[in-house]
Amino acid sequence: MSKGTVVLAYSGGLDTSCILVWLKEQGYDVIAFLANIGQDEDFEAARKKAEKLGAKKVFIEDLRSEFVEDFIWPAVQANAVYEDRYLLGTAVARPCIGRSQVEIARREGAQFVSHGATGKGNDQIRFELTCYALYPEVKIIAPWRVPEFYNRFKGRIDLMDYAQKHGIPVPVTPQAPWSMDANLMHISYESGILENPKSNAPADLYLMTKNPEESPNTPDVLEIEFSNGVPVKVTNVKESTSKDSPLDIFSYLNEIGGKHGVGRIDIVENRFIGMKSRGIYETPGGTILLQAHLDIETFTMDKEVRRIKQGLGIKFAELVYNGFWYSPECDFVRHCINKSQENVEGKVQLSVFKGQVYIMGRESPKSLYNEELVSMDVQGDYDPCDATGFIRINAVRLREHHRLQGLSSVKK
Amino acid sequence: MSKGTVVLAYSGGLDTSCILVWLKEQGYDVIAFLANIGQDEDFEAARKKAEKLGAKKVFIEDLRSEFVEDFIWPAVQANAVYEDRYLLGTAVARPCIGRSQVEIARREGAQFVSHGATGKGNDQIRFELTCYALYPEVKIIAPWRVPEFYNRFKGRIDLMDYAQKHGIPVPVTPQAPWSMDANLMHISYESGILENPKSNAPADLYLMTKNPEESPNTPDVLEIEFSNGVPVKVTNVKESTSKDSPLDIFSYLNEIGGKHGVGRIDIVENRFIGMKSRGIYETPGGTILLQAHLDIETFTMDKEVRRIKQGLGIKFAELVYNGFWYSPECDFVRHCINKSQENVEGKVQLSVFKGQVYIMGRESPKSLYNEELVSMDVQGDYDPCDATGFIRINAVRLREHHRLQGLSSVKK
Amino acid sequence: MSKGTVVLAYSGGLDTSCILVWLKEQGYDVIAFLANIGQDEDFEAARKKAEKLGAKKVFIEDLRSEFVEDFIWPAVQANAVYEDRYLLGTAVARPCIGRSQVEIARREGAQFVSHGATGKGNDQIRFELTCYALYPEVKIIAPWRVPEFYNRFKGRIDLMDYAQKHGIPVPVTPQAPWSMDANLMHISYESGILENPKSNAPADLYLMTKNPEESPNTPDVLEIEFSNGVPVKVTNVKESTSKDSPLDIFSYLNEIGGKHGVGRIDIVENRFIGMKSRGIYETPGGTILLQAHLDIETFTMDKEVRRIKQGLGIKFAELVYNGFWYSPECDFVRHCINKSQENVEGKVQLSVFKGQVYIMGRESPKSLYNEELVSMDVQGDYDPCDATGFIRINAVRLREHHRLQGLSSVKK
Amino acid sequence: MSKGTVVLAYSGGLDTSCILVWLKEQGYDVIAFLANIGQDEDFEAARKKAEKLGAKKVFIEDLRSEFVEDFIWPAVQANAVYEDRYLLGTAVARPCIGRSQVEIARREGAQFVSHGATGKGNDQIRFELTCYALYPEVKIIAPWRVPEFYNRFKGRIDLMDYAQKHGIPVPVTPQAPWSMDANLMHISYESGILENPKSNAPADLYLMTKNPEESPNTPDVLEIEFSNGVPVKVTNVKESTSKDSPLDIFSYLNEIGGKHGVGRIDIVENRFIGMKSRGIYETPGGTILLQAHLDIETFTMDKEVRRIKQGLGIKFAELVYNGFWYSPECDFVRHCINKSQENVEGKVQLSVFKGQVYIMGRESPKSLYNEELVSMDVQGDYDPCDATGFIRINAVRLREHHRLQGLSSVKK
Repeated sequence: MSKGTVVLAYSGGLDTSCILVWLKEQGYDVIAFLANIGQDEDFEAARKKAEKLGAKKVFIEDLRSEFVEDFIWPAVQANAVYEDRYLLGTAVARPCIGRSQVEIARREGAQFVSHGATGKGNDQIRFELTCYALYPEVKIIAPWRVPEFYNRFKGRIDLMDYAQKHGIPVPVTPQAPWSMDANLMHISYESGILENPKSNAPADLYLMTKNPEESPNTPDVLEIEFSNGVPVKVTNVKESTSKDSPLDIFSYLNEIGGKHGVGRIDIVENRFIGMKSRGIYETPGGTILLQAHLDIETFTMDKEVRRIKQGLGIKFAELVYNGFWYSPECDFVRHCINKSQENVEGKVQLSVFKGQVYIMGRESPKSLYNEELVSMDVQGDYDPCDATGFIRINAVRLREHHRLQGLSSVKK
Repeated sequence: MSKGTVVLAYSGGLDTSCILVWLKEQGYDVIAFLANIGQDEDFEAARKKAEKLGAKKVFIEDLRSEFVEDFIWPAVQANAVYEDRYLLGTAVARPCIGRSQVEIARREGAQFVSHGATGKGNDQIRFELTCYALYPEVKIIAPWRVPEFYNRFKGRIDLMDYAQKHGIPVPVTPQAPWSMDANLMHISYESGILENPKSNAPADLYLMTKNPEESPNTPDVLEIEFSNGVPVKVTNVKESTSKDSPLDIFSYLNEIGGKHGVGRIDIVENRFIGMKSRGIYETPGGTILLQAHLDIETFTMDKEVRRIKQGLGIKFAELVYNGFWYSPECDFVRHCINKSQENVEGKVQLSVFKGQVYIMGRESPKSLYNEELVSMDVQGDYDPCDATGFIRINAVRLREHHRLQGLSSVKK
Repeated sequence: MSKGTVVLAYSGGLDTSCILVWLKEQGYDVIAFLANIGQDEDFEAARKKAEKLGAKKVFIEDLRSEFVEDFIWPAVQANAVYEDRYLLGTAVARPCIGRSQVEIARREGAQFVSHGATGKGNDQIRFELTCYALYPEVKIIAPWRVPEFYNRFKGRIDLMDYAQKHGIPVPVTPQAPWSMDANLMHISYESGILENPKSNAPADLYLMTKNPEESPNTPDVLEIEFSNGVPVKVTNVKESTSKDSPLDIFSYLNEIGGKHGVGRIDIVENRFIGMKSRGIYETPGGTILLQAHLDIETFTMDKEVRRIKQGLGIKFAELVYNGFWYSPECDFVRHCINKSQENVEGKVQLSVFKGQVYIMGRESPKSLYNEELVSMDVQGDYDPCDATGFIRINAVRLREHHRLQGLSSVKK
Repeated sequence: MSKGTVVLAYSGGLDTSCILVWLKEQGYDVIAFLANIGQDEDFEAARKKAEKLGAKKVFIEDLRSEFVEDFIWPAVQANAVYEDRYLLGTAVARPCIGRSQVEIARREGAQFVSHGATGKGNDQIRFELTCYALYPEVKIIAPWRVPEFYNRFKGRIDLMDYAQKHGIPVPVTPQAPWSMDANLMHISYESGILENPKSNAPADLYLMTKNPEESPNTPDVLEIEFSNGVPVKVTNVKESTSKDSPLDIFSYLNEIGGKHGVGRIDIVENRFIGMKSRGIYETPGGTILLQAHLDIETFTMDKEVRRIKQGLGIKFAELVYNGFWYSPECDFVRHCINKSQENVEGKVQLSVFKGQVYIMGRESPKSLYNEELVSMDVQGDYDPCDATGFIRINAVRLREHHRLQGLSSVKK
C-alpha cells in the first residue's frame, strides 16, 4: 500500500539516487524528474539509472529555451545582481525547474514533491516556495531536513555504503573537494575546501571559463542588438557570424565569454537564512549581457525612470535570490521592469578579452542621447544662462543651511 | 578702480589663462588658484605664467592627501558608483578644490570666485554648489555662461586669437580631438570625436592605464588591509613591499592598476542638467579598491545593515555626482555610511591582471562568517528542521495568494 | 505689428487682469483661458471682463470631470501625500490646467503661454514643466519673473493704480490678509499674516469646511465602493442616497467632509525651490478618500506588493508636488501604481464626525484576508510549529551578531 | 529532578497561570516575571497568585520609565507608523519586556524563557527574537506551539477545567468577546467578534479613550517642546500646567488624548507571518506626539535629509513590527534617525478636540524657515529670475523626451 506518489527532482548523481531508493523504502511511489537546463549530463544514462532504481516513471525535460526566455531574460532586463556581485545563476534556475516539476506532479496526480537540496542552503527555499506558490496543497519531502534521513547519512561514506547495498551505481571518479551546481547560465562552486574564506580557489576548479592567463591574445568583438531590453541578435563582428534565437544567443555568449575567461567571481554572500557563505561563480554569457544591457539601457532610458528602475532591479534580485520568483511582489516588479524596457532598443558593440568586457560604442533609434544638445562645439537648443538659475535655486537650501549653522569652520 | 577681487580656479591651460586676462579686462583683481590634486602639471611653470598674465597673487596648493582622505575614502566606504558604472573621479575632486578656493577667497577678502567650467556640464554645478554652501555670500563669475564671454569666444580659434593679442602663451602641440580632466583618482575623456556615441575611442587615448593587450602576462597579487572601511595598508605579496599612508596606498594602487590596464570604461551617463553625455574614464586604483571594499564589507557587515547601506551608497553617489557634497543630506548620509563601517576591517587578497581584478580570499577578526555554521560537513549550532518552518511560514502568503487567484494556469 | 499670441491662464482676479493688459501693452495678442476646476467663480462675468480688457479670444473650459478622473483618481490610487501631510490639492490641479492651456495654444497657433504665478512658489514650476513637456517649443512669459513687470508692480497698491488707469475693475471688498487657491479638491491658504509660522490661523479663514466645534453632533456614515483602486460609488448609509459618477462622488464627499469639518491641516512644507513655507489646507473629500483607500488597499493587496507600492506612492507625491506630472518617470510610476490596483476592490464603511474619519469595517470579493487562517479559535491551514522554525531561522543572524560582539552588556 | 529553570512572562491572567502550572508539571522550576509597562493591573495580587501557583520566585518590575525613554521616544523620533496607520504600541513594548526577562534569566541562571503568546501572532516573534538576540544560548518554551499543550487546551473551556483542577483562580467576570493587550502606549483589540473585518467594533470596547461623541465640547490647547526630536515639556496653555519628565509627559498626553477621544483606528494589517489580521487600536498620547513631531521635524530639518530619514523611519517601523528591535540593522537605523534629530528642537502649539489633533503653530531656534526669504511681500535674498533657469533646466529632459516620442497627442 503506497503512501502516495512523489515527484523527485532527480539529478542522476549519488545523492538523489539514494533519495530515490530511500523514498521507495519509505513506501512512496517515485517519479523521477530530470530537468535539462543546460548542465553537462548524459540524460539517457540518467533515465536508465532512475528506471533501474525503481522509478515508476521518468520525465526528462529540455527546459533550456524556456530557462533563457522566461527566467534569464527578465534577469537581464533587471540588471539583476545580488549584493552587487552575484548574477543569480542558480537562483533563476530553481523556479524554472520547480515550475515543471509541479506541472508533472499535478498532471500525474502526485501529492508529494521531493528534492536533494541541503538544509542550510538557499535552494531548498527557492525550490519549495515555487512549489507552494504554484501548487499550494503539495506536500514536500526534503530528506536532508528529515532526521531519519540526515542522521543516517551523515557523510558521503554513508551514502556510498547505502548505494552499494541497494545496487546504486557508485561514482568511480573521486569527488572534487567542493560541490558544484551547473546550468546554462553559470556554474557555482562551494563547500569543502572553499569553506575557508581565505583559501584561494584552485586554478583547475573552473569548467565553464578559460583561465584568462591562457585565454586568446586577441579580443573577440561582438555587436549585441536589443529590443524591449532583451538581446535579439548577436554578431561576431570580425567573423560576421550571428545568432538570433534566445537559446542560440545565450549559448554563443557563453562560448565567447568562456573562451576569454569572462565572469569569474569569488565572493562571500548572505544567504536568506542568515548565514554568510563563500561561493565561486562563473557566468560568462550573463556577464557580457549585463554590461551590454546596462549600456543600452542608460542610452535609451530617461534618467529618472532609470533611478526608479534601478531600485526595482535591486528588489528583484533580492526576491529572486530568496526564492520568491513566484510571488505577487515579484510578479509586480517584473511587470514594472518589463514596462520600463519598452524603449530599450539598439545595438552595443563590445570586445571580450582576458576576462573583461569592454563596451566600445552604441547606437539606437530610441536613444535619448542628443549629440547636438550635449556638444561642446555647438549650442543646440540650450541657453547656458539657464544653468545659472538652476544652480542658484539648488543653492537656496544650502546657503540657508550654512547661514543658520553659523559661520562654522569651512573644513569639517 | 577695481570691481573687486576674484579667486580664479586656474589650470594653467589656454581657457583659464584667457579667462584670467579677460577678468582683468573687466576690471577685477585676479588671484589665481591652482590645486594639485594629482594631475600631471608643471606647477611652477603655471605659477609663472599666471604671474606674467597679471594675477595679483598665485596660490598653488597640494591637496593630494586631503583629496584621498577626505574625499576618496568616503567614496570607498560608500562603494560609490553612479548609474552602476561611473566611479565619480571628477565629482569627488570638485568639492575638494572648491573648499580650498573658498578658504582662499575668505582669507584674501575676495568677494568673487570664478572657474572655467562649461555651461552644459556637471562641473559648474559641483563647483558652485560647493562655493555657495561654504561661502553663501560669494558671487560667482562663470565666463562660459556670460554672454559677452561666450559670444566672443565661440571656438578654440577665438581663444587662440585672444591669447596672441594678450601675450598669453599659445599651446604648440595640437589639441587632442577630445577634452580630458585628470586627477589622482582618474582621467575622464569626453567631447570632440567622442560625442558620437557609436564611434570607438582611439587606442592611444588612455594615459593612466596600459592597454590590456600590452600589459604584463603575469598578475600582481595584492593584499589590502582595511580598518573602518578604508584601506590602511597595501602589500604586494610577491614583492613583499607595502604602503601604509593614504596617499601612498592610493598612488600604489594606481600604479599597479595602471600597469595592468584596470578601470577603463566607456559609458553614456545622465548629467544632472538632464542631458545624456558620453564619457570615457580610467580609474585604476579606485576600481581595485571598489572590488576589495565590496568584498571585505560583505564579509564583515550584517546582511540587513548591508541592504540599507547599499541604498545609502546609491544616494551618496547621486548626491556627489550632482554636486551636493557639501549639503545637509550628504553630511547625513556620510555620517550614516561611516557608522556602518565600524566593523569593516580585515584583509583582502586579490590579483590584478589584464584589466581585471580577481578577489582570491579574505580574512577578518570582525567577520560574521561562521565556517562551522555554514559547513556542509558539520551541523554547527543549526537545526535543519527549523528551515521547514521558515519556508512554510514564508509560503503562507504565497499559498493564500495563489488560492485566491483561483487555479490559474501554472505557467504565466 | 503683434509680437505673437499669448494664451494667458486667466483667473478673473486683479493680478491676471493686470497681466492681460500689460501683455497687450507689450505688443502681444492675448487669449484668455479660464479653467473651471471647481473653484467658486462667476465664469460669465470673468469672460466679459476679459473681453472688455481686450482679450482676442476667451476660452472657459469646464475641466471638473477630467480633473477628478485623470488627476485626483491617480492620486487616490497612490495614497499621495507630500511630506506625510499635504494631499497635493494644488499640485494635481496645475497639470490639468496646463494641459488644456497647451491644447488651446497649439490649436490657436499661439507661441506663448503666460500665467500669474509668483517667482518663489511651486506653481510656476508645475505650470511651466507641464507646458514644456507637452509643447516643447512653447515660450513662456512669467511676468512675476520679468524685472520690468515685478519692479513696476511691487505691491498691491501698484496693481490697483494700474487697474484704475487701464479700466480694470478694482475689487471693492478688502483683500484677505492671506492668499488662497481653490479648486474642487481643496483650498490652500498662505502668505500675509500666515507667514509667521507661530501665529494661529484665524477661525474665519476656512471656506470649504465647517469648524468642527460647530459641526453636527451626529456622524454621517458612508459606504464607499472601490474598483481598480478608485471609488465607483458612495452611499450615505442612513440616508440611503448614493452617487456613482466620479464628479458626483467627489463632490458629495466634499459636501459631507465639509459639513463635518474634515481635512484641515496647518503645516510647514518644503517647496521644490528649497524654501520652507507655511500653508493651511482643507481637503474634505480627499481626506475621506485617503482613509478609505488605505483601508481597502491593505485589505486586498499582498503585503510585499504594498511595501513596494508604498515607496512608489511617496515618489509619486514628490514628483507631483515638484511639477513633474508630465514626465517619463511620473508616467512610469503611475503605470506601476495603476497595475498594483487591479485587485483593490470592495466596500469600506466609515463614519465622518467632528473633523475625523473613522473606518468601521470593510468587505471585498478580492480580499486576501482569510478569517479562518487568522482565527484564534480555529487552526485553519496553519501549523503553529512552523513558527518555531521561522523564528529560529530569523534569529540565526541575530545570535551570530551577538556572539561576535562578545557578551556586551544586555542594555545598551 | 528539575529539567531546569524557566523565566515565564507572567500576566496574572488565566492563560499564563495555566502555563505556570503546566511548566511545573513538565518538570521545570518556574520564575514568574511580570513587567509593569503601564497596563491596568493589581500587581501585588498577581504576585501572590504566582507564588500560590508555585513560582519559585516572582519578579515584578516597573519598566514604565524605560519603556517611554528607550522605546517610545525612538519611535517618536522615527515617526514610526506601520503600513501608514498603526503606531506600533504593542510592537515597541515587546522588546522592553523581553530585555528585562532576559536580564532576569541571566542573573538567575535560568536556561529557559517562556511566554503565553499564540502561534499565529507577531508577539511570539518579537518576544523570541529579543531573547535570542540578547541571550543567544537561551531555550524558549512557547506552549502555544507545543503540540502537547495546544492539543490539550483547544479552547477557553479546557483552560477553565485545568484551572479548576489545579487550584488556579478562575475569572468570575465573563470574558469579552475579543482579546486585548494594554500598555502605557496603547490598547489593542483583536480576535473573537472582531475577526469579521466587516463587523463594526462595539462602542463599549474602548478603554483608554472617550467616545468623541461624548468627549468635551471645548478643546484643550497644548504646547509641546521638543529637543533632539523628543518631547521635553508639555504645557496645557489654558490651565498653565506642565509636565517635564518623559513618563509624566507621556502619561499627561494620554490623559488629554484619552479625554478627547484621540487615536482610535480600526485597520486590517499584514502580520510578519503573512496573514492579514484585523486590529483596533487606541493610542491617545502617541497620536498627539506623532502629529507634533512631524510638525517640528519638518520645520527644523532640511528637506532632503527629511526625505532620506522618511525612508529610514518606514524601515524602522517594519523592523519593529517584525520583532527586530534588537538587531544590527535596527541599531543602525536608530543611530541614523537619532543623528537626524540633532536640530529637531522647538515648540509646537496644538489643540486636541473630538478625536482630532490640530496643529496651530510652531517656533524654533533651529528652524530653517526663513520668513523673509519666503515672503510674498519682500524679496529677501532671492532673485526670481533664477527660477526661470531652474525650470528650464528641469525641462531639458522633459522636452527631449517629448520630442523623441514624436508629436504624440497631448492627452494620454
